[in-house]
Amino acid sequence: MQIAMLQDRIVPAGELDPVYLDRAMFFGDGVYEVMRSYEGKIFALEEHLERFANSLSAIELTGINLDEIRSRVLRAFDAAGIANAMIYFHITRGSEPRNRVWDVGLKPNFFLTVSELGDSSQDKAKGIAVSTFPDWRWKRCDIKSLNLLPNVLASTAAARKGCAEAIFVDEAGLITEGAGSAFFAIRGQTLQTAPLTANILPSITREFTIKAARNIGLKIVEESLTSEQAVGADELLVASTTKDITGVVRFDDKPIGDGKPGKYTRLLSEEFRSFTV
Amino acid sequence: MQIAMLQDRIVPAGELDPVYLDRAMFFGDGVYEVMRSYEGKIFALEEHLERFANSLSAIELTGINLDEIRSRVLRAFDAAGIANAMIYFHITRGSEPRNRVWDVGLKPNFFLTVSELGDSSQDKAKGIAVSTFPDWRWKRCDIKSLNLLPNVLASTAAARKGCAEAIFVDEAGLITEGAGSAFFAIRGQTLQTAPLTANILPSITREFTIKAARNIGLKIVEESLTSEQAVGADELLVASTTKDITGVVRFDDKPIGDGKPGKYTRLLSEEFRSFTV
Repeated sequence: MQIAMLQDRIVPAGELDPVYLDRAMFFGDGVYEVMRSYEGKIFALEEHLERFANSLSAIELTGINLDEIRSRVLRAFDAAGIANAMIYFHITRGSEPRNRVWDVGLKPNFFLTVSELGDSSQDKAKGIAVSTFPDWRWKRCDIKSLNLLPNVLASTAAARKGCAEAIFVDEAGLITEGAGSAFFAIRGQTLQTAPLTANILPSITREFTIKAARNIGLKIVEESLTSEQAVGADELLVASTTKDITGVVRFDDKPIGDGKPGKYTRLLSEEFRSFTV
Repeated sequence: MQIAMLQDRIVPAGELDPVYLDRAMFFGDGVYEVMRSYEGKIFALEEHLERFANSLSAIELTGINLDEIRSRVLRAFDAAGIANAMIYFHITRGSEPRNRVWDVGLKPNFFLTVSELGDSSQDKAKGIAVSTFPDWRWKRCDIKSLNLLPNVLASTAAARKGCAEAIFVDEAGLITEGAGSAFFAIRGQTLQTAPLTANILPSITREFTIKAARNIGLKIVEESLTSEQAVGADELLVASTTKDITGVVRFDDKPIGDGKPGKYTRLLSEEFRSFTV
């Protein structure tokens, strides 16, 4: 008889809840998005849906109706009634007995949560410390997939050192991005960040940060930088959906600038906020 | 109110089954093993448990009692009563609201299935076709983790071409291994396979294949080979737990040898079988 076992308990395979056979569980076979709202208004909904469509297409997860996803997001957001909310959702390829080759016609699984965003005002006011971690991720980080174990290992290693974010450094010694954020340096009147390649998530907050930088008159340079170059920068900052722009004041335990979020980081943050109202 | 949504249905977050918050679902934060039995006898149980312990340790998933895992495996195998069984199990870091940084003290989730092995006698008799796919995997393939999306994409692409296995080729043009198997070439009286590095799973069947090769007098060379070198080999074969040794007769649509499983592949297969009784 085919059987399954959950912790200590034997279950006939036929009685198993299909969620245990979700291909996300076996393979991380799915893609996700994270959005947020500012004071009751979801930020960059269409941009996130567009990137989600790209991720679905890249892993050949077909038959998803984006209008339906949008309406689910809006319905859940309304139902939650949280002004400053984080909205997470993923779609997986579906549930079936484990087999790397997927079955055509499998029904995808949709999962979403709406929760209250944590308060990041302290991080923004004081700036955060970050620490580097080898970039062990796969070669298609442009796909926002559920294969995030390297991000988990990096983020936890950083947290143990009292750091709020891990910064990935590749085998060539170049910074790619944060485990959950885009990474930027400011030198003089230039904002520098890694160019978008298959190793970098096309971060939506990154795009808005670049837009903010243009608006305040900074020059944009899309070139990777080393840890040494980062430490020597005037200012460092990370950008993510849930925390938008946050200054980095320590990098691998070395102080950045005068140890406080810099002038341009504050200006960028203000400019960014103007996009969200 | 914090809420979740499953497909179209809104669920208060507090009423959600913890399985939906499994870190395997969000991050692939877990490790797994696949074993098999031959005629009622589990093959290489201790070797698989040892590798499992290494994977757990590599992702810092602590507090797992291996004796308990062994006894669960044996209990489930007994209960299933399948002579030629495939035993799959994974342990994930546990269930909690999504956060890359894991909580200390989280209770790991254990999941196991026992099922009947498919009949692979046709594949063994006729040999299989394989096709190459870029090795997009992460940089710690020595860890048997649940981050398997590249393997899924490669295996499905291969299946669409009528191939039974995908062979990963890295950026340098070197073959690493199969999406679910170790890969070997035979040239003259030499068995060649990629050396064990962070890019290669320390396959247990690989070890037994090398042992079988020594027993039948082949020389072992642990050096990566290119696709061109593979096509020029006398024989090619893949080795995996569920199918042990299987000859490869087409590689990216080019015939290998005389298009049938070769002499040494058959001898290796026989020698391998002697380990399993």
